[in-house]
Amino acid sequence: MNDQNETRGDAEVTPEHNNTSPHVITLDDIHTAARRICGWVHKTPVLTSKALDAMAGRHLYFKAENLQKTGSFKVRGACNAVFLEKEKNPGSAGVVTHSSGNHAQAVAYAASCVGLGCSVVVPRGTPKVKCDAIQDYGGQLVFCDPTPMARKETCAALARDTGRTTIPSSDNTDVICGQGTLALELLEEVPDLDAVVLSVGGGGMLAGVATTIHHLHPHCQVYGVEPEGKELECCLRARVRLWSESSSFLNTVADSIRLRAVGPVAFPFICDYANRHVFTVTDDQMIQGTRLSFERLKQVVETASGAAVYASVHMLGKVQPGAQKVGVILCGGNIDFDTLPWFTPLPTY
Amino acid sequence: MNDQNETRGDAEVTPEHNNTSPHVITLDDIHTAARRICGWVHKTPVLTSKALDAMAGRHLYFKAENLQKTGSFKVRGACNAVFLEKEKNPGSAGVVTHSSGNHAQAVAYAASCVGLGCSVVVPRGTPKVKCDAIQDYGGQLVFCDPTPMARKETCAALARDTGRTTIPSSDNTDVICGQGTLALELLEEVPDLDAVVLSVGGGGMLAGVATTIHHLHPHCQVYGVEPEGKELECCLRARVRLWSESSSFLNTVADSIRLRAVGPVAFPFICDYANRHVFTVTDDQMIQGTRLSFERLKQVVETASGAAVYASVHMLGKVQPGAQKVGVILCGGNIDFDTLPWFTPLPTY
Repeated sequence: MNDQNETRGDAEVTPEHNNTSPHVITLDDIHTAARRICGWVHKTPVLTSKALDAMAGRHLYFKAENLQKTGSFKVRGACNAVFLEKEKNPGSAGVVTHSSGNHAQAVAYAASCVGLGCSVVVPRGTPKVKCDAIQDYGGQLVFCDPTPMARKETCAALARDTGRTTIPSSDNTDVICGQGTLALELLEEVPDLDAVVLSVGGGGMLAGVATTIHHLHPHCQVYGVEPEGKELECCLRARVRLWSESSSFLNTVADSIRLRAVGPVAFPFICDYANRHVFTVTDDQMIQGTRLSFERLKQVVETASGAAVYASVHMLGKVQPGAQKVGVILCGGNIDFDTLPWFTPLPTY
Repeated sequence: MNDQNETRGDAEVTPEHNNTSPHVITLDDIHTAARRICGWVHKTPVLTSKALDAMAGRHLYFKAENLQKTGSFKVRGACNAVFLEKEKNPGSAGVVTHSSGNHAQAVAYAASCVGLGCSVVVPRGTPKVKCDAIQDYGGQLVFCDPTPMARKETCAALARDTGRTTIPSSDNTDVICGQGTLALELLEEVPDLDAVVLSVGGGGMLAGVATTIHHLHPHCQVYGVEPEGKELECCLRARVRLWSESSSFLNTVADSIRLRAVGPVAFPFICDYANRHVFTVTDDQMIQGTRLSFERLKQVVETASGAAVYASVHMLGKVQPGAQKVGVILCGGNIDFDTLPWFTPLPTY
């Protein structure tokens, strides 16, 4: 069923929509972000594959954010937010964030670009390779207990004690504007997209891309792809954040989209500008999508990217069968190569 | 030791050089090949990585032939040779080749581009995934015993019986000219290279690239990278093909460069235009290089590409320490994902 006609426009705002954002993001905000981060992030290529087009029955345009600085799109939002902090407050004490993943590397990189100090709160037990990557970009590690609550509290205390500014991973309009810049580039290359498909964790990328595309090409549908258990579609249809606990994690192979809830800043943009239909994929389907990227695009991507590949190839046709040109975001390429998820260990004799 | 000064020029031709090619390849031949295959092969991107530059201590420019049509550079030579067959003989009965690898897919693709029939001799036991890929491009499979001799003989008999023209995988000037086109593109993007590093199997790519670079930018050194046991450097220094048996295979993880001997057509070009120093890499070193590509370039490449990555990062500095800008050919990306070579199976309990 194609429900694209019931998902847009202010007529949709009902009394249940208790999450209307106090924020507005204009096209000018996205363009300003693009100018701010220009030269510090890559303009990533858009890749195509005739084999995947044939499988999907439509033209797919893969935005290769796996080739982005630090290996994911996260650097766009991080640069926009960190550079803005430096502009507003040239004598800033620096920035702080909590993450063991792509956002941590992105903020550390962004801070290094403008000479700001950067502390990153990581849970004890974070693999050494991830800690090394953060330190390689100049981030100072601060360890905490491996619970979502401890991460938040440690980060807040650190910000308070050091005077450093917290850079959230997704629930922040500066971060959302930064992520939106990838949609500017995608539409520049392929102006007449019918749909865009991308994975959703905290919702910053989905909010930024959906907002940008709403401004520039409102007929294009923007779809989120989620791991099982997130239930974003229920929330979008109710226009209410139904998650009881914001900081809990899903049990999914896609470690970069483990966060169950979309935050209160990003949620209204997604409600207003994304299609209500959300593709829910299993671990196995994400792994299949990841492998398609490796085999057909020759691109190393993480399983969150594989989620979008799988949905665009195998699921979009049922929801928007008329979509001819579809953008697919390969959100990142930071994968643990020692445990590639499709490897079937050889039997031992 | 940098022996770049002793490797070039006719003064090097000694009586031992019993392999002088009857063929000459001019720059015009390479440009003609480029025009012939234009539109049927990709102009592949050149990728860079600050992390790999830092490891190597120089600037590396990776020519991403893993993103080429059919997944490897082989399609350049195959298209040039097959299209030329069609030009010379519009009523051609078709083409035939023997290969279970990249060359087979490349010839099948090239033949399909110009509507020629194509038979591919493959050894019995070739993995189904490879057979499927050849058939996907329209190639007709002909099975033979799994020995180098049976492959050659079956192919020759097939050519004789069907009137189809044999397209060799490397030892042919049309194929060599086609492979040389990748060097045209590389120099177009990075005109002032000091060196180029690429893996060598049958020698077609090394001959084509070295010849092209000799014509356009003769100060740039072109180095081959070989698996252990090939002993190409001994042959280059002697200027004699010392291999006793042309068709034997090396025992190496890099299945696309298993052929021990460089052929008699390609050898003289390599003698005349490549640096005499050949980098010999172990399986473990090729795997390390492959993994660097996956992790740092986010590019899926086969282990023959990993050989060139490893040599450019870890070995070139000892031979040509002054090289600032170095081209590295990522020759292909067709790897068997079920058995990624660096995966250490988890222990079973």
